[in-house]
Amino acid sequence: MSSPPDYRLLPGIASPRDLDGLSRDELLALTDEIRRALIGVMRQRPAHFASNLGVVELCVALHKVFDSPRDRIIWDTGHQIYPHKLLTGRFAEFDTIRERGGLMGYPNPAESEHDLFMTGHAGASVSTVLGLKAGDDLARAIDGDPRDRKSVAVIGDGALPSGIVFEAMNNAAELKKDLLVVLNDNKMGICPRVGGLATYLDQARSAPFYNGLKRDVSWLLNRLPVVGDSVEQVLAQAKDAVKTFLHGGMLFEEMGLRYIGPVDGHDLPGLIDKLTMVREVSGPVLLHVLTEKGKGFDPAVENPVKFHSPGPFDTDDDGCVVSIKTGSGGAAYTNLVSESLADAMTSDERVAVLTAAMCAGNKLEKIRDDFPERFFDVGICEGHAVAFAGGMAKAGLKPVVDIYSTFLQRSFDQIFQEVALQNLPVVFTLDRAGLVGPDGPTHHGMFDLSYMRTFPNMTVMAPGDAADVGPMLRFALAANGPTSLRYPKCVAEAVERVPAPIEQGKAEVYSWGEDGVFLVCGAQFADAVRAADRLREEDGLEFGVVNMRFVKPVDADVVERALAECGRVITVEENSVAGGFGAAVLEAAAVRGLDASKIKIVALPDAFVEHGGRDELLASCGLDEDGLYEAARDTAGVAVPANL
Amino acid sequence: MSSPPDYRLLPGIASPRDLDGLSRDELLALTDEIRRALIGVMRQRPAHFASNLGVVELCVALHKVFDSPRDRIIWDTGHQIYPHKLLTGRFAEFDTIRERGGLMGYPNPAESEHDLFMTGHAGASVSTVLGLKAGDDLARAIDGDPRDRKSVAVIGDGALPSGIVFEAMNNAAELKKDLLVVLNDNKMGICPRVGGLATYLDQARSAPFYNGLKRDVSWLLNRLPVVGDSVEQVLAQAKDAVKTFLHGGMLFEEMGLRYIGPVDGHDLPGLIDKLTMVREVSGPVLLHVLTEKGKGFDPAVENPVKFHSPGPFDTDDDGCVVSIKTGSGGAAYTNLVSESLADAMTSDERVAVLTAAMCAGNKLEKIRDDFPERFFDVGICEGHAVAFAGGMAKAGLKPVVDIYSTFLQRSFDQIFQEVALQNLPVVFTLDRAGLVGPDGPTHHGMFDLSYMRTFPNMTVMAPGDAADVGPMLRFALAANGPTSLRYPKCVAEAVERVPAPIEQGKAEVYSWGEDGVFLVCGAQFADAVRAADRLREEDGLEFGVVNMRFVKPVDADVVERALAECGRVITVEENSVAGGFGAAVLEAAAVRGLDASKIKIVALPDAFVEHGGRDELLASCGLDEDGLYEAARDTAGVAVPANL
Repeated sequence: MSSPPDYRLLPGIASPRDLDGLSRDELLALTDEIRRALIGVMRQRPAHFASNLGVVELCVALHKVFDSPRDRIIWDTGHQIYPHKLLTGRFAEFDTIRERGGLMGYPNPAESEHDLFMTGHAGASVSTVLGLKAGDDLARAIDGDPRDRKSVAVIGDGALPSGIVFEAMNNAAELKKDLLVVLNDNKMGICPRVGGLATYLDQARSAPFYNGLKRDVSWLLNRLPVVGDSVEQVLAQAKDAVKTFLHGGMLFEEMGLRYIGPVDGHDLPGLIDKLTMVREVSGPVLLHVLTEKGKGFDPAVENPVKFHSPGPFDTDDDGCVVSIKTGSGGAAYTNLVSESLADAMTSDERVAVLTAAMCAGNKLEKIRDDFPERFFDVGICEGHAVAFAGGMAKAGLKPVVDIYSTFLQRSFDQIFQEVALQNLPVVFTLDRAGLVGPDGPTHHGMFDLSYMRTFPNMTVMAPGDAADVGPMLRFALAANGPTSLRYPKCVAEAVERVPAPIEQGKAEVYSWGEDGVFLVCGAQFADAVRAADRLREEDGLEFGVVNMRFVKPVDADVVERALAECGRVITVEENSVAGGFGAAVLEAAAVRGLDASKIKIVALPDAFVEHGGRDELLASCGLDEDGLYEAARDTAGVAVPANL
Repeated sequence: MSSPPDYRLLPGIASPRDLDGLSRDELLALTDEIRRALIGVMRQRPAHFASNLGVVELCVALHKVFDSPRDRIIWDTGHQIYPHKLLTGRFAEFDTIRERGGLMGYPNPAESEHDLFMTGHAGASVSTVLGLKAGDDLARAIDGDPRDRKSVAVIGDGALPSGIVFEAMNNAAELKKDLLVVLNDNKMGICPRVGGLATYLDQARSAPFYNGLKRDVSWLLNRLPVVGDSVEQVLAQAKDAVKTFLHGGMLFEEMGLRYIGPVDGHDLPGLIDKLTMVREVSGPVLLHVLTEKGKGFDPAVENPVKFHSPGPFDTDDDGCVVSIKTGSGGAAYTNLVSESLADAMTSDERVAVLTAAMCAGNKLEKIRDDFPERFFDVGICEGHAVAFAGGMAKAGLKPVVDIYSTFLQRSFDQIFQEVALQNLPVVFTLDRAGLVGPDGPTHHGMFDLSYMRTFPNMTVMAPGDAADVGPMLRFALAANGPTSLRYPKCVAEAVERVPAPIEQGKAEVYSWGEDGVFLVCGAQFADAVRAADRLREEDGLEFGVVNMRFVKPVDADVVERALAECGRVITVEENSVAGGFGAAVLEAAAVRGLDASKIKIVALPDAFVEHGGRDELLASCGLDEDGLYEAARDTAGVAVPANL
């Protein structure tokens, strides 16, 4: 990004300490520049938008009052990190954000010493900051460093109900460490928040400011009961008055934290004052800050769900959004699954759908509206969602847990105990399995085939194309035990054929070839078909393609036949090479005592994959048509010209 | 168990409804018989003891008031299930408990329709009961069944801080389902409880009874401030008075549950009255019940930690415990690790140890006492423990997370995001990896090799014997990234040799043989050495033994050499065959294009393994000296006589 003359202050901010030289008016002007920079980039590409607009003042105030990186600031969930990047020396590269090789859309310690943890999954910040504080205190004692290091976690109200937050608050109260938890309350997760805590925070928002230190005497006295009222009245008044006096933060105070708030998150001088005060408070403190998602950009304020992470958009001369550009062509797996779920709910009234704050991401709004009694969005509480589904299945319902691959990791133990161990018919639909693209390593769903197939009783599937989705979901809903299907974040191709019916543990043989065969798990089915066509046409090689469908139980007969009849066997999966589908094929061969040396595994590497365009990342991993073609030529022993 | 004449009532209880015919005095007599049955069995074998003695009245009252199995009762964590088993038709088999083929020491749906979920990991009961209630309500509507089904979760105060409990309470408040959460507050987990909630519950215990429905008017009025006091005094008094009036359950009420309690958990008539009342309350209710761990057996009351799960014990004529029998011979891995940790903490003041309510189980009491500043027991909050460790590592400390294999599953996502993704030097020591014996499938640590090796950056190790423990831990503490070591619940053998130093990814070749080689991951090292001796002596077969030590990175050179030089290659691991160490060996062979058909994987099955003696279970899986000997003879093509 060039620095046009209308950026007067941002180009000069190399580190947060450059804020020290700015006047109050300049700080206010800086917030305008930050918003302009945000809107400028957001016009160009899909990115997290409304949440970043909401934390501009909070971010400036935090960096004004706290001394990062000596003081520790962790942004929970991390998608609201953009203003922080602008204040920590990354303005010049800001327009590369979420591009491959550019800035990451989440905190990234490799980019800056001000980014402590790469965060993307919600809720762990209070734990990590508490650990940092405990570690810093010990390290200072060892090193004889007398200077304190402050610790701050900034966490949204959407992440608050995540169980780990309570685990951390419980421990913080025990350890009595100086710790600031800033609750960034914008009344939203990605979707409107849910649960008892949401109701609670709504009440707290309207409570008078409570600073946790000195009591507002006159306010209380004005509300104490007057002698002469009836006993009933006295009690009701006394309870309400003192409860309000005890303020909206009682939940946190009962846990053992000091509550301060609520405060206006867009009043920069006020925020700086409050943070300056809070900085000196000892013990764990929760500062309740009220912000508005999309602040400063009216269309985003009006529709924060759509503007959570919108596509690029055009605006007219008045700044009104004219259009948001959406992806082109064909239905995504997400949509196909959502439609299939709706069909299943229509035909079977025992089917229920659960998600964890992914109503919008998983395109479940219609299901929520059409089947309100059988749709459950539990908030960012994946562990609870899975155990809840176990209970429903025990009651004879057919629950479907519809959660992203990467977030389902958070319920590993509940899949183990509450579902697989009980052998209950819960269906798991794992969206965004494989590489998600610009969100990067916290969001890639690289491990689900490895972890789902370790559970006894679990059937693990992946549709090969659009045609597989509906039948596979119906198959899952008819099963007597737990099942899962995973699919990537992309348009679902349709491989031309008459699809074979879905049968437990049976692969679909699309074609067969004596030179080799692609055993494909999932959406690279179409790539493999194209690669096989090219191998036939350009190299005269006969490669078959098998739509494996099942990772567990894997079709060992097809594996044996492939090893017996085909020159090379290439397994294909959008999952880590460690313990995934390829490993399952190797295990099946080992059980039968087969020579598997002709098997080549094409998979994601045993490494965290960077952010970037999904297609370019897949290509870099060899998981596209070209990659499969080259892998086949390579294993087939075809000489590759030196210039390729 | 024969039914001696002193059991007058228990033999006649075939189902909970048989309680209906008993008088109040008979119910009281029944609680005595239950206690006698508990003490009788506990004398004979290690079992969960103090917690079962504490819930006798609660269990009788619940089954008197609620109509199981129509009404749903789930016992969280499950080790306090014994009285429930006695009241649900299992008195005659009660003395088989925890034996192979006998009753399970946890709820088991295969035993009884009154056992809904096999529980063992803490905290999920509120979620599953809420799911059951939601499912039952939907199913009743579909089936046109007008009769309500009640739902009850019984959860201990030790499990309460587990994050999923809060996730469930948050959702319960939203759904407003009729739901009873019985908080069984005995002031203990396995160890004394910790955290802000512990302090909170201590305060709540001493609060007057609050029934959540009608207010104790006179009590409050007596405590309201008197006109004429100073403003300061008035405020302090008003706050305290009304806060107490608002009662100890405010935390739960703020979450959106109705709080009732505290009530005496050993007053059977009182409990029946309270439960009868609560049964009719609509919406989610928390009933706070105070119990005493070990109630009715003084030695257990006096030392509930020792009597949580003691060995068999003798008593003198007065019922005093004379001795608790302990296991014989040699130090367990648990002790060796604990001692090595203490050594490391002595020599390096940056080493810190974290656990999750396993201070006693992991033999960490001495570390807790000797290094209070660097020891952190966070309660049953494994997710928080791991994220906290990530924070400490970021601060330059060397945290060791010391948690059972099966419970570390609960922090899968934090190992992913807060440790592996950040590549932070956190050491994981996984106790009770493999088969634990009598606790059964909820406690076996069968999956950790599979799941730990899916994380990029993670080094995954298993000591082969006692001599490996110290050096391997020192190696882990010196590493620059995350490391883990896992070991079983057993005495650590010592294989006679001069151990090779621990080097990243390097196996230790103990011996070599052209007929075959055992590639051993972990404690079966000594078994393999003995099996190899027998193969040489009895069959004239030369089998080598390799102490593999590393699962990730696996020593591919040794694998290649074994495949090249040895007739058969047998991999040995105490982990599920799905994606474990054997799979890692197959993957390494595949990467090098080697024929792996001579590899035989000896591992735990891809199935949940029952409870029983550890040795007999291992034998049933072929994971002992005999099993390895037979596996080698089998793969070596030696004819096995028909009578074997």
